[in-house]
Amino acid sequence: MTDDIGAFVPGPRVRIEGRPGGSLQGLTFAAKDLFDVAGVPTGGGNHDWPTGRPVPTRHAWAVQTLLDAGATLIGKTITDEVSLGILGENAFDGTPVNVRAPGRVPGGSSSGSAAAVAAGLCDTALGTDTGGSVRVPSSFCGLYGIRPTHGRLDVTGMLPQAPTSDTTGWFARDAETFARVSSVLLGEAIPVALPGKLPSKLIVAVDAFGFADANVAEALQPMVKRLAALVGSSRDEVMAPQGLSVWARAQRTLQPSEAYITFRDWLDKGNPRFAFSVAKALVMGSMIAESDRVWANLMRQEVRARMKYLLPAGTILCLPTTPFPAPLCGQPLSVLDPLRDRITCLCAHGGLAGFPQVNLPGATTVDGLPVGLSIIGPRGSDAGLVAVARALEGKV
Amino acid sequence: MTDDIGAFVPGPRVRIEGRPGGSLQGLTFAAKDLFDVAGVPTGGGNHDWPTGRPVPTRHAWAVQTLLDAGATLIGKTITDEVSLGILGENAFDGTPVNVRAPGRVPGGSSSGSAAAVAAGLCDTALGTDTGGSVRVPSSFCGLYGIRPTHGRLDVTGMLPQAPTSDTTGWFARDAETFARVSSVLLGEAIPVALPGKLPSKLIVAVDAFGFADANVAEALQPMVKRLAALVGSSRDEVMAPQGLSVWARAQRTLQPSEAYITFRDWLDKGNPRFAFSVAKALVMGSMIAESDRVWANLMRQEVRARMKYLLPAGTILCLPTTPFPAPLCGQPLSVLDPLRDRITCLCAHGGLAGFPQVNLPGATTVDGLPVGLSIIGPRGSDAGLVAVARALEGKV
Repeated sequence: MTDDIGAFVPGPRVRIEGRPGGSLQGLTFAAKDLFDVAGVPTGGGNHDWPTGRPVPTRHAWAVQTLLDAGATLIGKTITDEVSLGILGENAFDGTPVNVRAPGRVPGGSSSGSAAAVAAGLCDTALGTDTGGSVRVPSSFCGLYGIRPTHGRLDVTGMLPQAPTSDTTGWFARDAETFARVSSVLLGEAIPVALPGKLPSKLIVAVDAFGFADANVAEALQPMVKRLAALVGSSRDEVMAPQGLSVWARAQRTLQPSEAYITFRDWLDKGNPRFAFSVAKALVMGSMIAESDRVWANLMRQEVRARMKYLLPAGTILCLPTTPFPAPLCGQPLSVLDPLRDRITCLCAHGGLAGFPQVNLPGATTVDGLPVGLSIIGPRGSDAGLVAVARALEGKV
Repeated sequence: MTDDIGAFVPGPRVRIEGRPGGSLQGLTFAAKDLFDVAGVPTGGGNHDWPTGRPVPTRHAWAVQTLLDAGATLIGKTITDEVSLGILGENAFDGTPVNVRAPGRVPGGSSSGSAAAVAAGLCDTALGTDTGGSVRVPSSFCGLYGIRPTHGRLDVTGMLPQAPTSDTTGWFARDAETFARVSSVLLGEAIPVALPGKLPSKLIVAVDAFGFADANVAEALQPMVKRLAALVGSSRDEVMAPQGLSVWARAQRTLQPSEAYITFRDWLDKGNPRFAFSVAKALVMGSMIAESDRVWANLMRQEVRARMKYLLPAGTILCLPTTPFPAPLCGQPLSVLDPLRDRITCLCAHGGLAGFPQVNLPGATTVDGLPVGLSIIGPRGSDAGLVAVARALEGKV
């Protein structure tokens, strides 16, 4: 298989056939290079990460689960360095091409996984989502993507970043494939859209829609209307009464300081090479005051309480996944940094509260760029969100 | 010529014959990869520095001056990334071998230049010294090395770091070669050691000797005695009444913030790759408060006043160039950072005050590791310091 979009890690392409007879037989998948594949060094998107580390002898849980279900692994994909990035520009391995938005970033950090699925190089792909790393590329590349309930999936063999926020995730181009893969990884059947099986209440997060670019909010309106029609009722609510930017501040306090703790021994002993922006994130993470962390943990409790209050069983919430479509490639950090900050305002709830979230593709701006609508449900309602995605596509 | 010590930059070796008939005819030299050589990209010790920059069409002033005097350029040498480093471990190009202290760093940032001269691969080599980048490798590799009076030499074609501290410098194994090269680059004859031509007063910087490791101070005592005998008188003085660590603090405030200003446009537009320690230095430089800079500039005035007071015409001051010999290669940052901080305490006066300084080799610790004794004179007395070096070696 050719790969002229730069989605796969350089070097020989790994291929492992799925076990015959499983529910995913016939499907192909790729794994972000944070997931262990036995016999292949895990690159982590950074050329110094593999140095001195043993080559994995077992597949990561998610890889093994897909192989056991019959899907065939066809490669490992480029990621932002040690998953620290949200745009998908890797200074070592390059920027995977976003076929849905040429000249624009694929989003990160699961950049290669999203790009490969969007380009049709595989049917599904594993990613990880700590601060938006599946949700953002799903939105930018026009894909289904899920950040499952935090703590639900076994993360054995997945390179950690900030464990209290880290999740496994995956992408697909169509709802049916998305549902098949989700059923396997969630270990649960995806309900069919019979009365009583789908959520009955939809909350529209008006603060998040107000925060997104006007053309994005507008582009998502038809999908919101269809969603409301499917669910049967809809009401407007502020998602973050404390402020989306306050939630983002808490996330930008907890995640980088946790990431620094994850990597500090490696930084100390290996003095590894990073793009300046990645090193800067780690340095900033190392300097966060304990008093700020104390506050951020209290805010995290408030966020969890708010999400729980908003989302009793049978209710889902929708918001724009990203405030804008994919930015242009190769822009200066002084342009990108404020964009990253705005993305965090719409993504912070994921890492803070750990509620499951699915990105629904289909909408585009007037320029034809994909933008995603996200639905969030109560903890554990992952399969229900996938069911909504499938019902909305009109498949079941 | 082979280069099994990793002193030269990877790739084809540049060679430019010197102009016949000059005073340096027969000598070979190397240039730190911060100096432009026409037709050769200037690497700056960082793989992303040359990207998008024009290949130089002229030699740097120092390179041209040595070529005009008859010396032959035989290569460009490895440097710490954009001269930000004092130990000589480059994560991209490796660590040049210090033949005088196997298994130990050569010192930086003029690492390859010092290593190449120490190994006999060339007679002299150009370096730069902002915070110690010639003085430290001179000490660690057992070489003559000079940091000239700041502002004296033309720095055209030399990659800047912190211009108010940056100087050109050079290395040699023996005092006679050192004097020949110094005469050309200083544009001034090196005085012979007749009565009245050498300094008549020696100050021993007791705070600096007290700050160095005891075995280093001890190893340097015989040379201090010979120096006192040569000069004819000696007295003990505190060099830094405000504290060597206070001088270091001022330097660590001014130099990184100036370096950040030098490189910030590149960081913004290029998001270049760095070793973590280098990126961290730049990030820290970006965050220095204006109030701290104001203080550091006042302290710089105090340092200049103190050095001027200590060093009237005819007086020189001696101190250990480094507080210890070359550290082992490959140590964690948590070990190296405190070593760097201690080095700065003995080097900060150079960047702050800009007085000329020459490292005298010859002493070794009981383990056989080179350690250097530095002499400092009044501004403009560079040739006199070189004359002292030559006289002390017993050549003139």
